[in-house]
Amino acid sequence: MLNAADVTFAETLTNAMPDLSVGPAEPRYLEEPRGRFRGQGGLLVRPASTDQVAGVLRLCNAASVGVVPYGGGTGLVGGQVIEDGPAPVILSLEKMTAVRSIDPHVMVVEAGATLADVQAAAEGVDRLFPLTIASQGSARIGGCLATNAGGVNVLRYGNARELCLGVEAVLADGTVISGLKRLRKDNTGYDIKDLLIGAEGTLGVITAASLRLFPRPAAIGTAMMVVPDPQAALDLLALAEARMPGCVSAFELIARQGLAFLEAVGPAVQQPFAPLPAWMVLIEIGLPVGLNPEQCLTDLFEAAGALVQDGVIAQSLAQRAQMWALRESIPEANKRIGSISSHDISVPLECLPAFIDEGYRRLAALGDMRVNCFGHVGDGNLHYNAFPAEGRERAAYEPIREEIKSTIHELVHEMGGSVSAEHGVGRLKVGDLERFGDAGKMDAMRAIKAALDPKGIMNPGAVLR
Amino acid sequence: MLNAADVTFAETLTNAMPDLSVGPAEPRYLEEPRGRFRGQGGLLVRPASTDQVAGVLRLCNAASVGVVPYGGGTGLVGGQVIEDGPAPVILSLEKMTAVRSIDPHVMVVEAGATLADVQAAAEGVDRLFPLTIASQGSARIGGCLATNAGGVNVLRYGNARELCLGVEAVLADGTVISGLKRLRKDNTGYDIKDLLIGAEGTLGVITAASLRLFPRPAAIGTAMMVVPDPQAALDLLALAEARMPGCVSAFELIARQGLAFLEAVGPAVQQPFAPLPAWMVLIEIGLPVGLNPEQCLTDLFEAAGALVQDGVIAQSLAQRAQMWALRESIPEANKRIGSISSHDISVPLECLPAFIDEGYRRLAALGDMRVNCFGHVGDGNLHYNAFPAEGRERAAYEPIREEIKSTIHELVHEMGGSVSAEHGVGRLKVGDLERFGDAGKMDAMRAIKAALDPKGIMNPGAVLR
Repeated sequence: MLNAADVTFAETLTNAMPDLSVGPAEPRYLEEPRGRFRGQGGLLVRPASTDQVAGVLRLCNAASVGVVPYGGGTGLVGGQVIEDGPAPVILSLEKMTAVRSIDPHVMVVEAGATLADVQAAAEGVDRLFPLTIASQGSARIGGCLATNAGGVNVLRYGNARELCLGVEAVLADGTVISGLKRLRKDNTGYDIKDLLIGAEGTLGVITAASLRLFPRPAAIGTAMMVVPDPQAALDLLALAEARMPGCVSAFELIARQGLAFLEAVGPAVQQPFAPLPAWMVLIEIGLPVGLNPEQCLTDLFEAAGALVQDGVIAQSLAQRAQMWALRESIPEANKRIGSISSHDISVPLECLPAFIDEGYRRLAALGDMRVNCFGHVGDGNLHYNAFPAEGRERAAYEPIREEIKSTIHELVHEMGGSVSAEHGVGRLKVGDLERFGDAGKMDAMRAIKAALDPKGIMNPGAVLR
Repeated sequence: MLNAADVTFAETLTNAMPDLSVGPAEPRYLEEPRGRFRGQGGLLVRPASTDQVAGVLRLCNAASVGVVPYGGGTGLVGGQVIEDGPAPVILSLEKMTAVRSIDPHVMVVEAGATLADVQAAAEGVDRLFPLTIASQGSARIGGCLATNAGGVNVLRYGNARELCLGVEAVLADGTVISGLKRLRKDNTGYDIKDLLIGAEGTLGVITAASLRLFPRPAAIGTAMMVVPDPQAALDLLALAEARMPGCVSAFELIARQGLAFLEAVGPAVQQPFAPLPAWMVLIEIGLPVGLNPEQCLTDLFEAAGALVQDGVIAQSLAQRAQMWALRESIPEANKRIGSISSHDISVPLECLPAFIDEGYRRLAALGDMRVNCFGHVGDGNLHYNAFPAEGRERAAYEPIREEIKSTIHELVHEMGGSVSAEHGVGRLKVGDLERFGDAGKMDAMRAIKAALDPKGIMNPGAVLR
């Protein structure tokens, strides 16, 4: 059993570490973006160094006090809030933001730096850190790693795990793992880095990371193309990758419903096609010297034949920004409409069209609703979200909300997919993991959790119950 | 304590599983390529299914009998042979070679398929499986994954870990992990896949894997270029990557010593430059439609100015094959000369030139010897091998062999590098791991080993003592 992070424990912390920032948690540390979870007040602890993190965890472990590692608070599955049980220590990395070193290949940065700051630091040495997610202004790199964040550039560059060469981390008992290697190849022992990445703070706290930097493409091209259906989108992607292997950096599917939401509730964006097309894709390519991106996209458009019905190619940075603004405003439009249930799923690529159709059919059988389906189709990853029918209230769907979710998740499972492609498990999907997770994998996870965090102080209740 | 896999245990296995192939291990299962280790006879068990693997491990675990997972036997660090202690079960995956499924994005294949067969299966659907190592005709994909094999294409495509989407594996107690997801994105729980990859059979046996397939480049170009020194090689690589980001698939450094060994002892290869240059690189690029690879390499050569002193560009597939034959014959020439000590190291990229120079200096201080230094310089990974001086015998260096190794490994450590960039730890580098491994990481590794294999039956003595 865990104990509460109470006044006495606060004194224990400040007595042992007089320089440590310890105080009550302001409300913003207890909220999460979708408002599904509401954290209880606990102690907010803001260490300024890895040593302080280790000291805090040692004391928490000794006193059996739970710890919630806290990054930017932008996670969508409740991994950052504890609703009940003994009040935890909220361990925010916000004071640890230093770029410890940077060269053209590798940046070593502390966990509290925001993703936007990491991107900017890379730009400062004329390199690219390709991880790109909507919340990058607030999301901190430690949280991006803890949740193995994905986003729009996974297609070309990989997810957070693939972009990270090493981590410094603190385990539950205060053991520091100093793994900030700046090496592309290192086969000396078990891959503890990749175990900590994606563990959502349940095995330890990532305090710093060495990140891969990439050369920036010599030229970038961006286009939106209207496709007749999702299968055509996949065929267009295959054509683009055959013509420009390794150069397609983003390939996002957008459904008419998303465009209609933008028209109805904003944010105001430039709509490239009228009437609104049933399906379109946003495609971005990064090319070697010697190729003109507009020409390559025009050639792709022509080679695509009936796969593409209409298209616009960005002719300026401003137009490129407009295209991305449309794509990245969809989550905000969704929020304004208010979803009944949101699903962050992936299926094997060839199953995507069937998934979209069958998902529509099964949801229609449950009631009258709208589906906005969009996302990183090149990764087989869709955000497949259900909304009230026009003019109806979200509350009216509350009785079937769980059924909507389980209907979609069962379909994903039938197709060999994942019910959390990029957002993680957090507290929202603990039950889904138990329902759909491989039994052998779950056993191994529990054994590892018990080995590295025997008292269960690390982010209790997240990922594993 | 473990028990020997004796006649009684053989009967236990055949009684429980009458269809299982059980017999004495022929000598070829007890040898390893460099002749540094000699395995003792044990039981050779060749399961034909994942169920049989699980059955064998359950019985081994119950009887506390050690198990050596056996792939192609091509590993260079003794991970596949047990020299002393109770005789083990040698568990060969050679009967499990099926391609279970293949589509343009993912191949699901059993662990016993050779890497060459995996490459050929990918070619059969007009795709690329980019993992390429010298031993690919014999190495089996399960072993490639267990050791997280690297090779010449890591620069563009990543190592074995990055090429694998999921594994099916059996843990020490017979628990089967069914993780053959065909998904690019899946954030449902801990990354057990990446923990098993690179664990060298000490945590479980990989029985099958789902592997990423890639579109083949529209055009491939290959060239050899003479550079004045290793720093110029790095500068040339930076220039190539700036001009063709993501398109440089191989960048191999070759020293005059390697070319001289080839001249002296073969294998016979076409030498592109006379006199033999001090340093040269082999560069390969894979390009999008619309670019001519010969032209791109010519342009690179011209843009390189003083970084490149001479160059040849392959004008045909035959010339490309000749260039690769030269590179891939170097290990055989090394073998014919007979190294005193071989080192598979990596350092941060910017440290490479200093490492090469300082390594020469420190070895020269130990005695008169030749160094052949070659390898995947784009990954910061060099094979830095010491040989007897001309006319001297290898045996004469035996007294300083350990000192040579520790001198190089200490230098690597000083520079923040790895003493096993791609070959793994096996039994050869257990002491190095203890000497150089981060204490916190070692603790975590031991805790995980104890949690997943409490009796220590999995590849005992490898990686962790």
